[in-house]
Amino acid sequence: MPIPAPVLSELQTLLGERLSSTQADRDHHGGSESYHRAPPPDAVAWPETTQEVSAILQLCNRHGVPVIGWGTGTSLEGHALAVVGGLSLDMARMNKVTEVRSEDMQASVQPGLTREELNTELRTTGLFFPVDPGANASLGGMAATRASGTTAVRYGTMRDNVLALEVVLADGRIIRTGSRAAKSSAGYDLTALMVGSEGTLGIITELTLRLHGQPEKIAAAVCAFPTLEGAVECVTATIQSGIPMARIEFIDEVSVRAFNGYAGRNFPEQPHLMIEFHGSEDAVAADAERFGELANDFGGQGFEWAATPEDRNALWKMRHQAFPAQLSVRPGSTAVVTDICVPMSELAGAVAAAHEDIAADGMVGPILGHVGDGNFHSALLVEPGNEDELKRAKALARRMAERALAVGGTISGEHGVGIGKRALMADEHGEGWQVMGAIKAALDPNNILNPGKLVPERN
Amino acid sequence: MPIPAPVLSELQTLLGERLSSTQADRDHHGGSESYHRAPPPDAVAWPETTQEVSAILQLCNRHGVPVIGWGTGTSLEGHALAVVGGLSLDMARMNKVTEVRSEDMQASVQPGLTREELNTELRTTGLFFPVDPGANASLGGMAATRASGTTAVRYGTMRDNVLALEVVLADGRIIRTGSRAAKSSAGYDLTALMVGSEGTLGIITELTLRLHGQPEKIAAAVCAFPTLEGAVECVTATIQSGIPMARIEFIDEVSVRAFNGYAGRNFPEQPHLMIEFHGSEDAVAADAERFGELANDFGGQGFEWAATPEDRNALWKMRHQAFPAQLSVRPGSTAVVTDICVPMSELAGAVAAAHEDIAADGMVGPILGHVGDGNFHSALLVEPGNEDELKRAKALARRMAERALAVGGTISGEHGVGIGKRALMADEHGEGWQVMGAIKAALDPNNILNPGKLVPERN
Repeated sequence: MPIPAPVLSELQTLLGERLSSTQADRDHHGGSESYHRAPPPDAVAWPETTQEVSAILQLCNRHGVPVIGWGTGTSLEGHALAVVGGLSLDMARMNKVTEVRSEDMQASVQPGLTREELNTELRTTGLFFPVDPGANASLGGMAATRASGTTAVRYGTMRDNVLALEVVLADGRIIRTGSRAAKSSAGYDLTALMVGSEGTLGIITELTLRLHGQPEKIAAAVCAFPTLEGAVECVTATIQSGIPMARIEFIDEVSVRAFNGYAGRNFPEQPHLMIEFHGSEDAVAADAERFGELANDFGGQGFEWAATPEDRNALWKMRHQAFPAQLSVRPGSTAVVTDICVPMSELAGAVAAAHEDIAADGMVGPILGHVGDGNFHSALLVEPGNEDELKRAKALARRMAERALAVGGTISGEHGVGIGKRALMADEHGEGWQVMGAIKAALDPNNILNPGKLVPERN
Repeated sequence: MPIPAPVLSELQTLLGERLSSTQADRDHHGGSESYHRAPPPDAVAWPETTQEVSAILQLCNRHGVPVIGWGTGTSLEGHALAVVGGLSLDMARMNKVTEVRSEDMQASVQPGLTREELNTELRTTGLFFPVDPGANASLGGMAATRASGTTAVRYGTMRDNVLALEVVLADGRIIRTGSRAAKSSAGYDLTALMVGSEGTLGIITELTLRLHGQPEKIAAAVCAFPTLEGAVECVTATIQSGIPMARIEFIDEVSVRAFNGYAGRNFPEQPHLMIEFHGSEDAVAADAERFGELANDFGGQGFEWAATPEDRNALWKMRHQAFPAQLSVRPGSTAVVTDICVPMSELAGAVAAAHEDIAADGMVGPILGHVGDGNFHSALLVEPGNEDELKRAKALARRMAERALAVGGTISGEHGVGIGKRALMADEHGEGWQVMGAIKAALDPNNILNPGKLVPERN
């Protein structure tokens, strides 16, 4: 159902040129980095204030017009697609750092600010915001999808680093959740409820984030292993030994080949770990030594240390380009990306099983991941439009998810639900998924906020 | 409204001798450690299985009978009082450790198990559960009130240490929230929603907890300061410098006097900090040295180190008996206990203002707290039945809460809402409090779960 003309006209009055129905703008807000496809939204709005967001939602709520939040469009499960039409709410113009409170190690930011922009602003403060999903995503989008990434093993996910939010509800009411205090037991944790709700419960218009001290010393390295099992078991042993890794990333052989081709590298075509240590000079040296001994026990060899900050940045830039690199292994392909997360004791088994399943099917499916959290991804490369391949990829993804659930894990460590993981939600949560639906219905009775995502279909 | 006879009879059939309506059992479940008073519940049930909890809730939900969870009765805001009658659900018989998974540093436990019982069971594993609210509370109760305490500055609160829950909903449905994976982005964070919901959204029947490695070395000390400001500013400087304190507790002069009398100590009657370090031998030595230098800057003197584990335990036992010690300053008194938590940069101002307000009123109100989190308590001692004193104490408590809110803090760092903090919820959360009410109404439409607490009165 298209947006009714009187609503469009009211939006136009409110936003002027910051409302667009051009095909180009609609198409730009109808794309996705993954295989998910949907028609574009009917219009795009660029609000500049919380009050505008509130006015837009009041209007859309009155007329039952869907509103879909848009950050940078880098989500992987079709979160921001307008599956039943409606208005794409692009937060790009709400991109300011509202306040940095160094003494409390906190920053308040608008949702359209990206994590790299924030860290650029923080450069001279001695502080940084650590959560790093790879993409230069918007902080609002990262909160909405409970993003994490390479540094979560040390600094936690968005769950751990969002202290407070300003949120506009479906009916336009503006609420503030959480506080600037380090902890609170004053009622339901609405901050935690909003983080990861994927724009289905409200639109985030401000975030108060926890910052961390820039480490005195950072050291990063790459290390090859003779077998996949050796690399993964080394990770489990490292985490269990309590070495405070800042990053510990697994990259399988196929992914290494992808990096070599895409980023002009020359790593041996073997499983690798990419690691990083943060701390004082002494602590980093001690941690690196302990890790080196463990790696040695599992056959690790050929440590290549990033000698300069530039080398280190190049290394992580390469890692962050994993997705296009993997796609380049099969030019023109798209990918079904899996995202299971399992308890550490189950990691080696889960990675090995995924590897075997992919090999048995014959599909190309490079594996890598944030293994320090027990989280890894396979990018199952499929030819666009090839229904048979898509079906096989989805069957493989389902098998991995079922295996994760069987060992106490989760279907999604960090990518979220969107439309891609919705079919697995009942498997993970059982009746709990219905509870999510009940909460959604209570806070958004007209189902205007990102409808068709995350929760069960409304009866 | 008393429980209807047919319901009591069905409960009796279900539970046999594990249902009681004796005055003694009712009175035992109608008390509170604080000044809050209410008539006792109409009956007490001791379920032994999740299925029994489910059957009890189905029955009570059908008949609109209130059900109030009961752990150890140590909460301070009247959380477990049967303010409109009903059934007290005592979880004491569900007190087993279900599973310890050392390799994942996790334990699954039933809600009636206390934190000390869990740590006794873990003694030989090299692991421990750190959250320590002082009282030997049940783990279910600690989750329900989002408890924290002395070690939160290092290990976080129940929010950070509960990975997964089994919960029975008002209508008897059994759900599992969270997973054993370190992180997840698979939908709304129902675990975080249940933690701190104070038995108003469901009854917790199993918890999966995050464990931590027992530190190689523990060192604890007490240190006196010439002024309140010096002690508190030393804490702020310590936290800002990043020294990983395991505990850092402030105790004012009046509290020191209370400890000296109650625990037979001989500390100088000055403000003190109680501190603890966890880590390797080397790290603890380095941290203690850095802290010593900072303390010196703020006039700290007379470090008294606990030489043996027994001395250390005696020290923290003393701290844990703060509440009875404080009450003993005025024999026969009860207390209005405040619990504000503010950003670190606001801590010194908030403590000083509280101190001045109490002095200006003339009330006896010792102050202490988990200042590493920005959280502190004053126990405003009132004579039971003295309405004027109670009114003055509540006015002082409100003033402290308002000051906390004015600087971005919270009315409750760790004690929760119950009935005691309910009048302040609108001040902290505004429209967000109504959102809590909407969630409560969606999950418990008949309002049987701990009615009269936390959320707004149902219209």
